[in-house]
Amino acid sequence: MRQVGSAFWPRLRALQVYGANTGVGKTIFSSILCRAFQKRFPKIHYIKPVSTGPQDEADDQHLSTLSQNVKAKCLYQFSEPVSPHIAVRSSPEPVTDDGVLAALHAELSSYATGENGTVIVETAGGVLSPSPSGSSQADLYRPLRLPVFLVGDHQLGGIATTISAWESLYIRGYDVKSVALFSDDHYGNYSYLKDYFAERDVHAFSLPPPPERNADALQDAHAMRQYYEQGSGLPEVRHFAETFIQMHDKRIANLKAMPAEADKAIWHPFMQHRERSKDTIVAMDSAYGDYFQTYSTQREKQPSNKPETAVLKPAFDGSASWWTQGLGHGNPQLALTAAHAAGRYGHVMFAGAVHEPALTLAQTLIHEMGNPKLSKVFYTDNGSTGMEVAVKMALRASTVRNSWSADDEVLILGFKNSYHGDTIGTMDCSEPSIYNKKVEWYSGRGHWLDFPQVKMRKGQWVVEAPEELEQAHEGFGKSRTFGSLDDVFDFENRQQDAAFYKEYCSGIIASLKGEGKKLGALIMEPIILGAGGMMLADPLFQRCLVQAVHSTGAASTGGTDWQGMPVIFDEVFTGLYRLGRFSAASFLDVHPDIVVNAKLLTGGLLPLCTTTASESIFEAFLSDDKSDALLHGHSYTAHAVGCAVANQSLDTMMKMEENGEWTAFQKSWSEPGPAAKLPSQRKVGAWSMWSNAFIKAISQRSNVDYVFALGSVLAISLKDPAGASYASTAATGLRDKLFTGSPGEDWVIHSRVLGNVLYLMAAMTTKKETLEVIEERVFTALE
Amino acid sequence: MRQVGSAFWPRLRALQVYGANTGVGKTIFSSILCRAFQKRFPKIHYIKPVSTGPQDEADDQHLSTLSQNVKAKCLYQFSEPVSPHIAVRSSPEPVTDDGVLAALHAELSSYATGENGTVIVETAGGVLSPSPSGSSQADLYRPLRLPVFLVGDHQLGGIATTISAWESLYIRGYDVKSVALFSDDHYGNYSYLKDYFAERDVHAFSLPPPPERNADALQDAHAMRQYYEQGSGLPEVRHFAETFIQMHDKRIANLKAMPAEADKAIWHPFMQHRERSKDTIVAMDSAYGDYFQTYSTQREKQPSNKPETAVLKPAFDGSASWWTQGLGHGNPQLALTAAHAAGRYGHVMFAGAVHEPALTLAQTLIHEMGNPKLSKVFYTDNGSTGMEVAVKMALRASTVRNSWSADDEVLILGFKNSYHGDTIGTMDCSEPSIYNKKVEWYSGRGHWLDFPQVKMRKGQWVVEAPEELEQAHEGFGKSRTFGSLDDVFDFENRQQDAAFYKEYCSGIIASLKGEGKKLGALIMEPIILGAGGMMLADPLFQRCLVQAVHSTGAASTGGTDWQGMPVIFDEVFTGLYRLGRFSAASFLDVHPDIVVNAKLLTGGLLPLCTTTASESIFEAFLSDDKSDALLHGHSYTAHAVGCAVANQSLDTMMKMEENGEWTAFQKSWSEPGPAAKLPSQRKVGAWSMWSNAFIKAISQRSNVDYVFALGSVLAISLKDPAGASYASTAATGLRDKLFTGSPGEDWVIHSRVLGNVLYLMAAMTTKKETLEVIEERVFTALE
Repeated sequence: MRQVGSAFWPRLRALQVYGANTGVGKTIFSSILCRAFQKRFPKIHYIKPVSTGPQDEADDQHLSTLSQNVKAKCLYQFSEPVSPHIAVRSSPEPVTDDGVLAALHAELSSYATGENGTVIVETAGGVLSPSPSGSSQADLYRPLRLPVFLVGDHQLGGIATTISAWESLYIRGYDVKSVALFSDDHYGNYSYLKDYFAERDVHAFSLPPPPERNADALQDAHAMRQYYEQGSGLPEVRHFAETFIQMHDKRIANLKAMPAEADKAIWHPFMQHRERSKDTIVAMDSAYGDYFQTYSTQREKQPSNKPETAVLKPAFDGSASWWTQGLGHGNPQLALTAAHAAGRYGHVMFAGAVHEPALTLAQTLIHEMGNPKLSKVFYTDNGSTGMEVAVKMALRASTVRNSWSADDEVLILGFKNSYHGDTIGTMDCSEPSIYNKKVEWYSGRGHWLDFPQVKMRKGQWVVEAPEELEQAHEGFGKSRTFGSLDDVFDFENRQQDAAFYKEYCSGIIASLKGEGKKLGALIMEPIILGAGGMMLADPLFQRCLVQAVHSTGAASTGGTDWQGMPVIFDEVFTGLYRLGRFSAASFLDVHPDIVVNAKLLTGGLLPLCTTTASESIFEAFLSDDKSDALLHGHSYTAHAVGCAVANQSLDTMMKMEENGEWTAFQKSWSEPGPAAKLPSQRKVGAWSMWSNAFIKAISQRSNVDYVFALGSVLAISLKDPAGASYASTAATGLRDKLFTGSPGEDWVIHSRVLGNVLYLMAAMTTKKETLEVIEERVFTALE
Repeated sequence: MRQVGSAFWPRLRALQVYGANTGVGKTIFSSILCRAFQKRFPKIHYIKPVSTGPQDEADDQHLSTLSQNVKAKCLYQFSEPVSPHIAVRSSPEPVTDDGVLAALHAELSSYATGENGTVIVETAGGVLSPSPSGSSQADLYRPLRLPVFLVGDHQLGGIATTISAWESLYIRGYDVKSVALFSDDHYGNYSYLKDYFAERDVHAFSLPPPPERNADALQDAHAMRQYYEQGSGLPEVRHFAETFIQMHDKRIANLKAMPAEADKAIWHPFMQHRERSKDTIVAMDSAYGDYFQTYSTQREKQPSNKPETAVLKPAFDGSASWWTQGLGHGNPQLALTAAHAAGRYGHVMFAGAVHEPALTLAQTLIHEMGNPKLSKVFYTDNGSTGMEVAVKMALRASTVRNSWSADDEVLILGFKNSYHGDTIGTMDCSEPSIYNKKVEWYSGRGHWLDFPQVKMRKGQWVVEAPEELEQAHEGFGKSRTFGSLDDVFDFENRQQDAAFYKEYCSGIIASLKGEGKKLGALIMEPIILGAGGMMLADPLFQRCLVQAVHSTGAASTGGTDWQGMPVIFDEVFTGLYRLGRFSAASFLDVHPDIVVNAKLLTGGLLPLCTTTASESIFEAFLSDDKSDALLHGHSYTAHAVGCAVANQSLDTMMKMEENGEWTAFQKSWSEPGPAAKLPSQRKVGAWSMWSNAFIKAISQRSNVDYVFALGSVLAISLKDPAGASYASTAATGLRDKLFTGSPGEDWVIHSRVLGNVLYLMAAMTTKKETLEVIEERVFTALE
């Protein structure tokens, strides 16, 4: 699969000409620009990727007749003079966006070698005119993100159409370098637009309109030639051409300088900076869909790097931008939604107030989680703060019910290798580890259980028990094997395991209580423990632990009350479709009292977090005393932009689920039966976007310890002779290999490691074909 | 000053007709809609707020001739047939946006009483066509946020112009209910747009084009009348009219239901929910500029509420949306910037990476703070997480230099009544208080100094020392008076005070160290302590404390090294122009080692926080061991949207400062000399957007204890017989009075209280006239 990235080469200055409307003179401006650039470079190309109308009137024909030495080309020509999406109907071959994009990119690439040159890419119609496939032109060409020259509308009403066209380009992430239009004294569009765009750092200029058409073809051609000749020599045009050439070089210089400047001014997260230099920092020019557009000084030093090599390389966003990305970068719908909320509200203070996006989001979460206990949503800004709130909620509820005193040390019950955030309160929820051990104010406040893990080893699903669990029950054994991942989740067929797990968990709780320990909450990341090492927990064990907790309390009243101790599910990473389902808790078929969601919540655009609690937890804070309230709240609590984007994202993913857009992925996991045997969409088994066959295959690699995949997550644990730990470097070699790529590959893979584990994460919109290529590359790289 | 809010009345259904371009048939559609609505309501109005061209051709004339019983009106008529911003030049009177808006609002209000009716407001030209003042129409009318009917463009290229016009409306926060256009089989615009908008929940329909114009006026009129008659009876038109009427009622019903639904699904920040009910929750329909558009059930119960009363009431955002707001709600430039970054990047993972918005923001902060120590920016999501990072940085630096062991309890030195965030680690930085005392895991880890406060009492600036300070030095006395606020900041003339302060602070530090306490950081909110009670600290005292800390270390090497202990300035609230200057530290003329910024950072749109540190602090984390790194980082770290919006916001505020846009405010504070005596813009004295005369006046009120104002902040401390505390209700009466307003007032004031303090905060763009009205109302309300 060819991946088309930014079209940006050192020696080829590409400029895309868009029109604010049809009939505003795109071709005339293109022709003048070609002539102007000719004064600088001998090599001038012109491309009309898609053209409609009789061939002899096609723009490239017109242009090559009039302008000497310009190599003009049209990639798709339709004879009917209508919009491409209609004209294409008479085409014998289907024309896809990917096809147009690939053809254009290939054509541009072919100009990028050799001597210095310029290429003008002229679009058809207006900015959002339909492409042959029916999408919009501005969306079709966005992956290339060519600098834009917008031809403004000089006609009556042209001020409005020009600015709106510019806004449509701008919100799609384009850089619009210049706006130019024909002068017209009567309407004064130019004089208005010049000032308007100057305020927005966009340079505008005008040209005298072309001569009236002459019925005599010879005279007409002559007049036009004269017009072009004069136009291309005008100071405004020469100024633009010069500025554009400088901007091209400046853009390259800026990109090349960015890593060193970042090294000076930025303190990066989670990084030992002694290992950092300008050569390790990746500059992100932009991103689209699954791909970053990256520049790295290291790549420049590779032998394959030549003066004509593209400046930017697309890199698959293999960490889903730190587990947040769900709907692709530069998603125009999310961008529009964000802007609409910003335009409607800005941020409106949420204390004692409500607005539609926050209310809708709260209602959706409560409804879709399918947990009858949950009824109240508290907003914060990220998973860490949302977990702080969850802990405050749970500890208070426990303290109130148990009448513990302020001096009592309240602990939490959790999992080893858990991770709940970077703030000190959430760090205290995890056992001492590399993350927290040097944080002066860290003090682990809990008891942490080791847990059985699900792994695919040498083509076989196994559940491996940790030593303490193995020793607790004679005959339980170290590991058990399963025919499929679904079998691991088939709790009904694992009743023996369940009985043992419950006994084991109840025993631990009883013994802790026997020691006088006050347990205020059970906290867990359901199914996958993320930052602590990417581990797939045996879901049955997690389920049984919750049940054991419940059984330590009074018998259920059947209401929303918590039993034993409040149960907090940290679904910051695992919730909202990351594992293929709206709720990670639904895999365990238990009802936590508090659920925290973030990351994918906004589809991967903005920070936002929700802590959803049961009515029973909520009530623990009710009193006549203000100081009993949950006195927590950040100033951007429930910011409208985040909530609106979250609503849009959840809607999109819920519709994808309903429409069965993941069926192709699911099929590979529903072994052995055919697709028809799948239960209803809402109740599909465990599945991943990574294929079952692939993970089986890589689990056989000699340097692989084990692997697993679920939802969009893939984890590969590599054998490390020095033992598994966060400080392990076993996986960095694989990471670097994937990011370097092979010389022939037009895109690479950007991934992250956690100790000896390399993980990959797709967006929920990533195509199967893309993942298949990645699977092949990973398979090869593991050799 | 009249404030124009949302135009939304129960009995008047207002619809604004925008055109995707000129010449698309706005007036024809308006005429058909009027006729369609006539079938439902007897009272139909039509307004063309601004019209250009000869009067007898004006749209309202045309319309009233053709459609019976429609009351048509044009508010501003210019005879020249050009864009209003050009036509207005021949007008004898200047025409401002505020004027047009007020006239239109008044006109609409006059229709809102009596029987049920509908009004069509037809705009001129395209969506972004210039208003008479030269702004855009869509911006001019935005405060009314009328539901929009967009007439699409049926001509060649009309798909692009229609969608772009819709996007321009959408990103300005408009609700576009419907898109309609003339049908045209050849271009097929309608068939494309119908599907396009259906995917975006916008209903589209088409009408047959009107008959060709007839040279015979009588026949022409007859043909058109027939066309209108037929058109208004078409099922699509009737369906639209019916749907629109239902939507109007539904919008009201939704608003009325929101408080109760929020009461069910939302857990509000900082609230004792026993005091909450649907009657206390304010529903925010939208916001623009300084104003929320609010609905509250409580207001509905007021005697002044009549069936025809506007559903929404504008409320001045008097807490600057919890101290965040700086550039007005619904700011179209911030919305566009957010969308551009979303379109260019989405969110790109920041670990080991860099992108332009984050790099630029870091460089701007480092440069503009004017503190030579600072060189590295760490990104987080809010003030609380940014302070957690600051504390981790400082404690590590201290621990490393002092070779403290992991068992040592490291404390911080801070101020009483300080507040640094809601996460547990930052709570630990403040002394026990109502905020944290019931948080199970809270443990204050520091020593906190009481401090002298600056207050205006009975028209006189005083600095009042706390008891412990007063007692420390015989003859220092309880309080000293100053001629002006500038005199308080005139450190050169306060050398005696300084000597005493330094001695006092050094004494405390020495005594703490003598007790064996390990002090790892000095933490302070420079100038104003916010959430802890809105207190203006004596800046000289804060300055002297920093100097005392410095003097406990080795003599300065003159570099960026910290001395004594790292100094953290929490400028989350006070930085970035909230107090009138880029940096709050600049008031103290000292150089902290770590500065935290948030809130105003994004101009009041989105959560983002920066922790800026010195090279010396940064170096404390360098080693060959990964575990020595600052292992902190949220997944949306340095999200591109937030960084881009921050760059835009800071740019805007820096330009406002440079252009002297606050000079009018500053004049009232530069007593006694004239404005000419002000030092250069960058070095203005202490000033506030609240006038000096006003705060003097209210400080004389009998129920006022003291007041102060600085930058955009005003704090009024009310006398509370029960004593000052967070639980005090002394200020809530004033708050309620301001929010209820008087029956004659067309807008009210939304404010927040902190115990017995009511504070008000303006955006940096709030107009002087607005604040003057508020000042008068507050003055009156204090009687």
